[in-house]
Amino acid sequence: MEEQKSRVAIIAAHGTLDAAYPPLILATAAVAMDMEAAIFFTFFGLNIVKKGMADKLKVAPIANPAMPMSIPNIIGMLPGMTSIATGMMNSWMKKANVAKLSELMDIAAESGVKLIACQMTMDVMGIKREQLIDSVEVGGAATFLEFASRNAITLTF
Amino acid sequence: MEEQKSRVAIIAAHGTLDAAYPPLILATAAVAMDMEAAIFFTFFGLNIVKKGMADKLKVAPIANPAMPMSIPNIIGMLPGMTSIATGMMNSWMKKANVAKLSELMDIAAESGVKLIACQMTMDVMGIKREQLIDSVEVGGAATFLEFASRNAITLTF
Amino acid sequence: MEEQKSRVAIIAAHGTLDAAYPPLILATAAVAMDMEAAIFFTFFGLNIVKKGMADKLKVAPIANPAMPMSIPNIIGMLPGMTSIATGMMNSWMKKANVAKLSELMDIAAESGVKLIACQMTMDVMGIKREQLIDSVEVGGAATFLEFASRNAITLTF
Repeated sequence: MEEQKSRVAIIAAHGTLDAAYPPLILATAAVAMDMEAAIFFTFFGLNIVKKGMADKLKVAPIANPAMPMSIPNIIGMLPGMTSIATGMMNSWMKKANVAKLSELMDIAAESGVKLIACQMTMDVMGIKREQLIDSVEVGGAATFLEFASRNAITLTF
Repeated sequence: MEEQKSRVAIIAAHGTLDAAYPPLILATAAVAMDMEAAIFFTFFGLNIVKKGMADKLKVAPIANPAMPMSIPNIIGMLPGMTSIATGMMNSWMKKANVAKLSELMDIAAESGVKLIACQMTMDVMGIKREQLIDSVEVGGAATFLEFASRNAITLTF
Repeated sequence: MEEQKSRVAIIAAHGTLDAAYPPLILATAAVAMDMEAAIFFTFFGLNIVKKGMADKLKVAPIANPAMPMSIPNIIGMLPGMTSIATGMMNSWMKKANVAKLSELMDIAAESGVKLIACQMTMDVMGIKREQLIDSVEVGGAATFLEFASRNAITLTF
């Protein structure tokens, strides 16, 4: 342990706006604290590293009674409500000076966070390497477990 | 490891009834096993530590085909269904002698579980310290990572 | 650490098709890498280890704007849409040669993955031992924490 830096190994399995922030915030905070960090984008989380998608992620306005702008599901499911909820969350983030997801992704890549796209998910969803942002590498469960098995804080979002 | 107690470091990122129970149950179980424990309340999870909210959390009756009282989404989205699903879950918990969330929160605080409210989420959602229960402290990603980096079981809900 | 194998300790708290795959894929990958693995099935995740349920799990067609087959919530909540979304996901899995969940569960059990059903959830939901598949054992939060406290990658789905 003395010779091995602390690590943070994160699985991003959901591709919504609210689920994409914590992995990127924690990973960039970790490298700022001189830890190593990796994010494994799998299942719906693969969405986050598709080219041009980071700033288009949405938040679901239904099935979440803990949302600050709580609205009945019968209203939330109406067309347009996903955009409205997403717009509100983005404006709150901006007002609080939180970086956009694309910016956090750039900061993560530049500061050495290992970004891993799940090979199996790519196969299942028919997604090709060129559809993903350049800064990701492609790997599998073993790639993640190998990284996570050495002195790592492991988190799932 | 001999000198450092085992720890449990939990992120509570969702504020629904079903997502609030596991962090509190695991953290209180951990301290009973002579481990140290912390819960970091972030994003929608901040809801759990708002004053008076613990026993008002709700469960979503839609978008969860694994619910025991499975109902079609078209029914679940009707007004009143969130209350009905929440009432059912609370009554099951009570019948099985599971403590209410407010009671678990008190047990957690009294037994030394570190309860941390996410500063960034407070900024983003415009929530002030006085709106949160007294037993939480306010901290950031670094506070959590610092705690989690020493011999900790790290979990996310 | 030299004498202790690396471990993967996973909590499966959701019982949807998409939430059931990652624990089983990661646990079976871990044992293939000569690690030890355990999955703790709790809350809605208990659903996964009910007899005959593994291949009947469903994916929710609503409240997930990151789904590859993105449909408006107002359409997704219509009767029959859960089946359609589930059928699509299953067919993609099959096309990519990913094993069915029941097969993964058998592989997990045979390769020594410890499958633990949460006692408290059984009490709360009124589920009896004989309703669960034979390969699970019944345990509590302490059983999980005990396993997870020794050199483990800990993940939650």
